[in-house]
Amino acid sequence: MKEFSPAVRELVDALRTLPGVGPRTAQRMAFFLLRDERHEARRLQAALERVCTSVGRCRDCRMYCEDETCELCRATRRNRALLCVVESPADLMAFEATGRYDGLYFVLFGHLSPLDGIGPDELGLGRLHARLRDGEVREVILATNPTVEGEATAQVIAALCAEAGVASSRLAHGVPAGGELEYLDGATLGCALDGRRPYAA
Amino acid sequence: MKEFSPAVRELVDALRTLPGVGPRTAQRMAFFLLRDERHEARRLQAALERVCTSVGRCRDCRMYCEDETCELCRATRRNRALLCVVESPADLMAFEATGRYDGLYFVLFGHLSPLDGIGPDELGLGRLHARLRDGEVREVILATNPTVEGEATAQVIAALCAEAGVASSRLAHGVPAGGELEYLDGATLGCALDGRRPYAA
Repeated sequence: MKEFSPAVRELVDALRTLPGVGPRTAQRMAFFLLRDERHEARRLQAALERVCTSVGRCRDCRMYCEDETCELCRATRRNRALLCVVESPADLMAFEATGRYDGLYFVLFGHLSPLDGIGPDELGLGRLHARLRDGEVREVILATNPTVEGEATAQVIAALCAEAGVASSRLAHGVPAGGELEYLDGATLGCALDGRRPYAA
Repeated sequence: MKEFSPAVRELVDALRTLPGVGPRTAQRMAFFLLRDERHEARRLQAALERVCTSVGRCRDCRMYCEDETCELCRATRRNRALLCVVESPADLMAFEATGRYDGLYFVLFGHLSPLDGIGPDELGLGRLHARLRDGEVREVILATNPTVEGEATAQVIAALCAEAGVASSRLAHGVPAGGELEYLDGATLGCALDGRRPYAA
């Protein structure tokens, strides 16, 4: 490629930085973007320019948005007493995709990881604490990942909730919907057993 | 996503136009490009801008390049008597990756397809014919795909070669290197049988 066009080579290299894109896929994408009128290339370029210049973070939930606060935080039809704390924007999107949650969010953009220099400030816990103290939120759902770091982060936020007199909850562990017990790992099945609920006929 | 940022939504939509990218992958890529300092987004944006403004086609082989002719067509160490005609830039890259070909190329950017309005002009056959007549090329390798359209295109180019007194050849069909006969389709195995060669001990 280098022999033909350094510009195309640079495009392939830039595409390779994307998650899940290897050398062959990057080449295929580059040739796709180069074909004919290059409408797709121009469209992608314009979209990238726009996000680089105009997309910031919501003051209240820290989600990506173009204004000071996002539309979701401003929405009057959402339950403002419920706050779901997630690690990443993708987690927020996953909750929205369920259609079963009508509260607000707070996006940490990571989890506590002192060795990587990620402490309470990087996760915006000061802002979260202020929100908890202003009295609007009644319950915080600690939806961090069930990993060591995620659990530690949840624990710290639970302490902030307790201090502010706000209830906190953790997502249920258990059998996935449609899952087969036979193939479930022991830890999950144990959690499902511990968290069993009265049969509602 | 629309609720948070139309700009992010537009980026996801633009990424979805790439081959092999579905809605989830596009979202993952967008969040990756948005994170932290957005170095990757800026790099990809710059690369796209550069290819849109500076990448054209080589006058001689029609491959993407930034000058009038590509480096490969200008190279003195290549065998200028051998010309490999391929349908796409990706096919050219596949030949280069073998490291077994040292001739020149001609990229058709498609195959003859009258119903789609792709005729000899769209494939640059006029330019190819001129190259065949200038006497430098001694053999043309017809490396179009072994499809109906590819075969038809090869046939037309073979006629141009005959007219210009240039030898033409077609790639060998046969057993893939490392392939197992048991799993080979009948047509390919038949071709391998027809094209058998004396055993060189």
